[in-house]
Amino acid sequence: MIVEKMKGFGTTRSCIRELFEYGLKQAAIVGKENVFDFSLGNPSVPTPEGVANVIRDLLEMDTLTLHGYTPAAGAANTRMAIAGDLSRRSGDDIRPENIFVTCGAAPGITATMNALAEEGDEIMLLAPYFPEYPAYASLTGAKLVIVPADTEHFQLKIDEVEKRITPHTQIIIVNSPNNPSGVIYSVETLTALAEVMIRKSQEYGHPIYIISDEPYRELVYDGEDTPYLPAIYPNTVICYSYSKSLSMPGERIGYVCVPDCCENSKDLFAAIAGAARAIGHVCAPSLLQQVIARCTDLRPDLSAYDLNRTTLYNELTAIGYHCIKPKGAFYMLVEAPDGNSLAFSERAKAHNVLIVPTDDFGCPGFVRISTCVSHDMLVRSIPLFRTIWEEYQQ
Amino acid sequence: MIVEKMKGFGTTRSCIRELFEYGLKQAAIVGKENVFDFSLGNPSVPTPEGVANVIRDLLEMDTLTLHGYTPAAGAANTRMAIAGDLSRRSGDDIRPENIFVTCGAAPGITATMNALAEEGDEIMLLAPYFPEYPAYASLTGAKLVIVPADTEHFQLKIDEVEKRITPHTQIIIVNSPNNPSGVIYSVETLTALAEVMIRKSQEYGHPIYIISDEPYRELVYDGEDTPYLPAIYPNTVICYSYSKSLSMPGERIGYVCVPDCCENSKDLFAAIAGAARAIGHVCAPSLLQQVIARCTDLRPDLSAYDLNRTTLYNELTAIGYHCIKPKGAFYMLVEAPDGNSLAFSERAKAHNVLIVPTDDFGCPGFVRISTCVSHDMLVRSIPLFRTIWEEYQQ
Repeated sequence: MIVEKMKGFGTTRSCIRELFEYGLKQAAIVGKENVFDFSLGNPSVPTPEGVANVIRDLLEMDTLTLHGYTPAAGAANTRMAIAGDLSRRSGDDIRPENIFVTCGAAPGITATMNALAEEGDEIMLLAPYFPEYPAYASLTGAKLVIVPADTEHFQLKIDEVEKRITPHTQIIIVNSPNNPSGVIYSVETLTALAEVMIRKSQEYGHPIYIISDEPYRELVYDGEDTPYLPAIYPNTVICYSYSKSLSMPGERIGYVCVPDCCENSKDLFAAIAGAARAIGHVCAPSLLQQVIARCTDLRPDLSAYDLNRTTLYNELTAIGYHCIKPKGAFYMLVEAPDGNSLAFSERAKAHNVLIVPTDDFGCPGFVRISTCVSHDMLVRSIPLFRTIWEEYQQ
Repeated sequence: MIVEKMKGFGTTRSCIRELFEYGLKQAAIVGKENVFDFSLGNPSVPTPEGVANVIRDLLEMDTLTLHGYTPAAGAANTRMAIAGDLSRRSGDDIRPENIFVTCGAAPGITATMNALAEEGDEIMLLAPYFPEYPAYASLTGAKLVIVPADTEHFQLKIDEVEKRITPHTQIIIVNSPNNPSGVIYSVETLTALAEVMIRKSQEYGHPIYIISDEPYRELVYDGEDTPYLPAIYPNTVICYSYSKSLSMPGERIGYVCVPDCCENSKDLFAAIAGAARAIGHVCAPSLLQQVIARCTDLRPDLSAYDLNRTTLYNELTAIGYHCIKPKGAFYMLVEAPDGNSLAFSERAKAHNVLIVPTDDFGCPGFVRISTCVSHDMLVRSIPLFRTIWEEYQQ
């Protein structure tokens, strides 16, 4: 009498977690310095110092205010700070009323999914996609529709998207900069996607919404920028997290933004607030809300991620690997030399190099290397990647 | 194409919130000191000082550890501290493996509900019940079954429970000390409930689980104690929050405990972990987890709640009101003099006394008075309660 589907989500081990835990065990045997763990997407750059200073100041506040309930959508000053910051970045006119503060991006996504989709509907995932999306979508009862990856450029196969849009399509999830590819979808890609979605929305007589999952929005390199999606496709709901941009993934603070340009934006905002109640959201952590109210413009030092990215890309391509050059986030995809990503991950594991096969991302044939690691460890891993390559040549 | 049910949860104003916001507006007109707001259940006793000291110490930690992801079920030291604390209080042998740390009790309840119930199942609420439960249950697709209140003692009408248990009953929610009544269900009441549930579980060939929602567990008076439910009924899942016991309701930190005595406890724990993924739980706020790891034995000064409770009960019964004497939490029920709770609340509102009709708690005919208010305000409200009483006598 236990719900089997939920038991499944609770017992199916994530491949990433399994590798990570294997790494911890191996470290106890061979020494921490001999394990090359590229499995987790855990920020490796410290939280900006300003955060601790702000928390120290906040501790002088009246405790009932500091630790008290805020409105479900967030404290007024937090919503105002977020709206101001997003307006400055985007050039759009975002007001506090557009912002719903959440416990990270994940519950923002589940609330938005449950506000927009129910049994009989369809939610579209664009491979490669974050492996948690199927779990996030599960309570809606909607069917998942997967669009295969563009394994050449890791942009989008627009014709494959179009083929799969049906009268039941309610949501397409867009994640850019992308986990696991590190690719930023170009304005051209997103414009082409918008064109198809607008045409199909008209054909089927109802809006199809984008959920833009953008925790890596500010983690961009080479002077790139993450396009502001609502300006390209109005029916876009943004789900954001400060996990990466403030290096505080454990603190669970982020927001949903429903811009005015969204069709039925007020009703949609209300439905997201309602779905948030339904998942047990009361408010985002109040102390952290006050941190965000004062820290929206802080950024960690991204140069370490950039250096790792460049070093790894240059070294691995010099060895002979085919790599997808990332422009954002802190991941890089490497093609399995013989196309078998599971075997590639296993082979690397034998050398205590822990890299994640992309099968669970809906895109087999590659491994994901997290570059949010110490530069020293990354440099010391290069000879092992060479050895692994040579094994493939035998 | 927006899910109407969720829009409904987002637009239906809670009666409590409406009164509270009316109070803010009235305060601007007649002065804050002339508004007697008994609407919200917001702790009025400061957070124990130890909490701020612990946070200051934690800020010396490495930021990547302090603010980093923890396992979904919680940091090892947090789970260990909670298990130890619960073992000491209960005499049971609770291990860290029984504890899943959550963002407050609410998402613990929604995760447990979704782990145990789906379409075709039934979830039983015992009136008077917390008005958020219907929203919390909504994504399960299960049917709600309401048991009418025992309006004499606010214990349970066991025969009414028994009549309503069907082969589809999966969960009964127990909330003691109770919001809104402040009553603690006695060992006799709970034993009688357990007897019926055990009999019915056997009759229908599957366990019926209790979700014990106990955020007020430590807010008890007159030397009372909150019975430890798993010792009376083994198939009990505890959902707890530190909102009240540490006066930090905004911080969203609590836990689910699945004791070993629960049937299929490991599968159930896995299903709760899976359902937590499905609602977007990643981990509970990491800084707050470390606070809990060090503060499980701190308690706020409960004497202020106790004084308010006694004063209000004595004064209102002296006037002539029929009150239910609370033994826990920070609420008291008062019977509407003519049985019409909505009219009673409206009449009081005309005197700027804000008290919540219990209709939304599934138990019309009473008002809930929150006693987590300043003692001065409470004392100054007594003459107004007398005036209101006199109006009823005319």
